Amino acid sequence: MGGDEEVKLYGMWASPAVRRVEWALKMKGVEYQYIEEDLAKKSHQLLEHNPINKQVPVLLHNGLPVLESLVIIEYIDETWKGNPILPIDPYQRASARFWATFAETKLLDGTKAIFLAQGEEKVKAIKKVEDTLKVLEEELRGKKFFGGESIGYLDIVLGWIALWLGVGEEVADYRVLDAIKFPKITSWIENFLHVDLIKENIPDRQHTLEFFHNFRRFGFAIPNK
Amino acid sequence: MGGDEEVKLYGMWASPAVRRVEWALKMKGVEYQYIEEDLAKKSHQLLEHNPINKQVPVLLHNGLPVLESLVIIEYIDETWKGNPILPIDPYQRASARFWATFAETKLLDGTKAIFLAQGEEKVKAIKKVEDTLKVLEEELRGKKFFGGESIGYLDIVLGWIALWLGVGEEVADYRVLDAIKFPKITSWIENFLHVDLIKENIPDRQHTLEFFHNFRRFGFAIPNK
Repeated sequence: MGGDEEVKLYGMWASPAVRRVEWALKMKGVEYQYIEEDLAKKSHQLLEHNPINKQVPVLLHNGLPVLESLVIIEYIDETWKGNPILPIDPYQRASARFWATFAETKLLDGTKAIFLAQGEEKVKAIKKVEDTLKVLEEELRGKKFFGGESIGYLDIVLGWIALWLGVGEEVADYRVLDAIKFPKITSWIENFLHVDLIKENIPDRQHTLEFFHNFRRFGFAIPNK
Repeated sequence: MGGDEEVKLYGMWASPAVRRVEWALKMKGVEYQYIEEDLAKKSHQLLEHNPINKQVPVLLHNGLPVLESLVIIEYIDETWKGNPILPIDPYQRASARFWATFAETKLLDGTKAIFLAQGEEKVKAIKKVEDTLKVLEEELRGKKFFGGESIGYLDIVLGWIALWLGVGEEVADYRVLDAIKFPKITSWIENFLHVDLIKENIPDRQHTLEFFHNFRRFGFAIPNK
């Protein structure tokens, strides 16, 4: 990287979407300035760079804002060559993108639905998430990581499972992450959390738990790191 | 293209997601075999190639299935070089991908919500779609197409607006596509429908209208082309 590059990341410590962007930047060895946002009182800069949905993460590269975590990860992969995040082969790329979209819509949106649901609706939402985990369990067959022997695009997209899914279970009082039902996902979580780059860039579990307890109770998020 | 390539597309004539894949294939000049699916009685081949969500479109390239229309379009763009569909510049690519995701979640899912909603919910859903159209109207400022002087990725992703949005309005009895409120989107639709490649590969309006009337009334889709 040239010394004339300016890379800034607007984030919020407890956001899994922000962490996955940080993992991508670190996989590439890109130096960046991290700016913590208070989501209850967003900065002028954030609103200026992301007037559309006013959310983090926002990656600012030489003054140009890039939005949406999956889009940002592809941008990082295309801008800083070396240590590819997505596979090189077009078919493998398509496959990784398919699973990423699948996981975002079925699993991430699915666990958000559990978070908000009650009674019969909650039971149905849990069943849907379990069905999705079954499919991902199958996709891990014979592999240490979704990316193969080391972490890749799909691993960092799914990385939130390793911390936030369990936190969500505790906060919303349900259980899907069963080691007997999902042995491969369970070892994937263990392997993923042992990768140095991840271990050193993931929030503290207890702190994250408090954050989401507050979030559920008061509808909005509170403590800074 | 070499004569040893085998490209098949499993589709359904009234599906906008299938049409956008056909537009991408035709932009690249890729020859393919089109296989029409009866969604009420899906073929063994479709279920075999897409056991995950059992939907069209499925692109089969030399026996390998590629799923999800946006993923398929990127696959096509990366596999057959020449006539790029996505912009070349990483920042422009990220921007096109951002707007595509934005349009899929806010506009496409938004119009589906109108289709299913009643009363107060429907009014709210219509308002959301109008707000999204305002943002896209702004994005078209100074441009003939989202891609610039000719159609590109975002144009084919948003192409459903040119036919299916209007059909949806008629079927679900609402109106958002106002030429006075959205003059740029209105001329974009006109320009888009005048592109030969689109004109020659878009279903008949009356037929599509009947299809979605049936779909709304009976919950499932009926007539073949």
